[in-house]
Amino acid sequence: MQPLRILMSAEAARQTAGGLAAALGHRPYVLAAVGDDADVAFVSRDITGLSTKHAVLPATQRFHDAMRGAPSLRWVHAHSSGADRPVYGELRARGVAVTTSSGANAGVVVQTALAGVLMLARCFPQLLAAQRNRNWAPLVGSGLPRDLAGQTAVIVGWGPIGQGLASLLSVLGLRVVAVRNSSATAAPPAAETVSYERIGEVLPQADWLALCCPLTERTRGLIDAVALARLPVGARLVNVARGEVVHEAALIDALQAGALAGAYLDVFAHEPLPAESPLWEMPNVIVTPHTAGHSDGNEARVAAIFLDNLRRWAEGQPLLNQV
Amino acid sequence: MQPLRILMSAEAARQTAGGLAAALGHRPYVLAAVGDDADVAFVSRDITGLSTKHAVLPATQRFHDAMRGAPSLRWVHAHSSGADRPVYGELRARGVAVTTSSGANAGVVVQTALAGVLMLARCFPQLLAAQRNRNWAPLVGSGLPRDLAGQTAVIVGWGPIGQGLASLLSVLGLRVVAVRNSSATAAPPAAETVSYERIGEVLPQADWLALCCPLTERTRGLIDAVALARLPVGARLVNVARGEVVHEAALIDALQAGALAGAYLDVFAHEPLPAESPLWEMPNVIVTPHTAGHSDGNEARVAAIFLDNLRRWAEGQPLLNQV
Repeated sequence: MQPLRILMSAEAARQTAGGLAAALGHRPYVLAAVGDDADVAFVSRDITGLSTKHAVLPATQRFHDAMRGAPSLRWVHAHSSGADRPVYGELRARGVAVTTSSGANAGVVVQTALAGVLMLARCFPQLLAAQRNRNWAPLVGSGLPRDLAGQTAVIVGWGPIGQGLASLLSVLGLRVVAVRNSSATAAPPAAETVSYERIGEVLPQADWLALCCPLTERTRGLIDAVALARLPVGARLVNVARGEVVHEAALIDALQAGALAGAYLDVFAHEPLPAESPLWEMPNVIVTPHTAGHSDGNEARVAAIFLDNLRRWAEGQPLLNQV
Repeated sequence: MQPLRILMSAEAARQTAGGLAAALGHRPYVLAAVGDDADVAFVSRDITGLSTKHAVLPATQRFHDAMRGAPSLRWVHAHSSGADRPVYGELRARGVAVTTSSGANAGVVVQTALAGVLMLARCFPQLLAAQRNRNWAPLVGSGLPRDLAGQTAVIVGWGPIGQGLASLLSVLGLRVVAVRNSSATAAPPAAETVSYERIGEVLPQADWLALCCPLTERTRGLIDAVALARLPVGARLVNVARGEVVHEAALIDALQAGALAGAYLDVFAHEPLPAESPLWEMPNVIVTPHTAGHSDGNEARVAAIFLDNLRRWAEGQPLLNQV
């Protein structure tokens, strides 16, 4: 039997060292070098490094090109939750199976999204500005925050992140409405569930609109000027999904007009967010650099998902998280 | 029967208007003016206004003096969770019952404390500084945050706030240790419970030290230089209790030395926090102006607790939340 040729970084080889042989049973394998042909590739976090979808650095580019140039490649596993970078689309178009690590950092992203909700709900943008001015300015009178309990959160996307955020917001006393790929099944703890195409019907209820969905042709541009106009005045947006789910110019307009009261944004139409974007300096907007899911435990969780899929691959079983 | 003389603000009279007669059964009552004698007083949020324990504004002072000058006063109900302002001590010393609204804003304080934990865990102080510089600086390499799940939180005080925070942190995967007035009873979800006097034994476990206790003679100065030195390097502090629970100079030393990695502080030894305090400008310290519990739903919850206690008073039953 030919050894399975696996393309991965030295760092990924270190992370999976104890698990490759076990996952493959008795099948032999070799680690392929960049430039060699390969059967399987594992795109670990260190390969992506500081590259974004829109600005690919040379080391990342070399690995992507190695996958493009491997004629025998049949399967690629990505460390990320989504597989919306162009290279994955190209590989899928030529029949390569693409799987993701959806779920590996979901708990972390949920915590970061919750931080965004709580920071906005508890007026931290204003409080931190007062701190920088050494100004003791309690929230009283017209600046009093609203009780978070009893508010409604519309959560778009019902994967591990959307469900995890829904669960925590329910514990905090919020009512949750789910917007997802299908409305056919009940989705507790959501009080109501609609499909992506019917989002307009539930947006008028949203004190919070939280985007936790994958970027697909059904979600691209979902939150446009028409959708934003259906939100009640004072609503707030959290986006830990993908920038392209939102029409960013319309979002900026809604924030500047005060129709939208605030936003926590981890993802943008173009990443890095250009220095000239007005989002950086809006007083009620929190900007983070697509870092909502970064945590020191992710690599081990991603490696475990890859190894589980490698075992499935070797045994001819269906892969998990195939897109 | 003499009408019960109740001292309260016009705002408090408005908030309780529908409930006073019902709470008192058929007993007559009158609203006492500031300067008149009174049997009962209700210190509502508007009375405190922007006064702090250490800087009492004239309108607040007038109400405090009215209570001091009412010879028939037998019971005072406070809107706050604690009753550590000097006036309450003076009134208790002459036999006046003092009750608090402990619990009314507990859910709100828990949410704010959780915001503080998540902001520190997810590196928001650094991320927001980068935002102000329009700098796209993802958390990678040595700056990667630690998984919050699996860390340990030592929670000091086991009232509604401590228990509420413990419950949420448990859901997020943290291990909780309780430090409370008694260790005699198990306190789920805490894995371990010790009394205030034995806090030193559990501090070495604390990734997070969250202060949620009342200020009493047992908790004053509890977190001194010796206690801080028992925390592991990299621990973080959240204080939503009272500033006097911490030796503030020792806290500043620990933060400046880097032994303590960060803090969210809502309360201080002197409030307002003096403009010259170094806490305002420390990069890993979040300062808010004793505002963790402020929310628009509190007044109705406080009024309900006062009315419940007024009914108990009229019926001769024990009062709730008596200190």
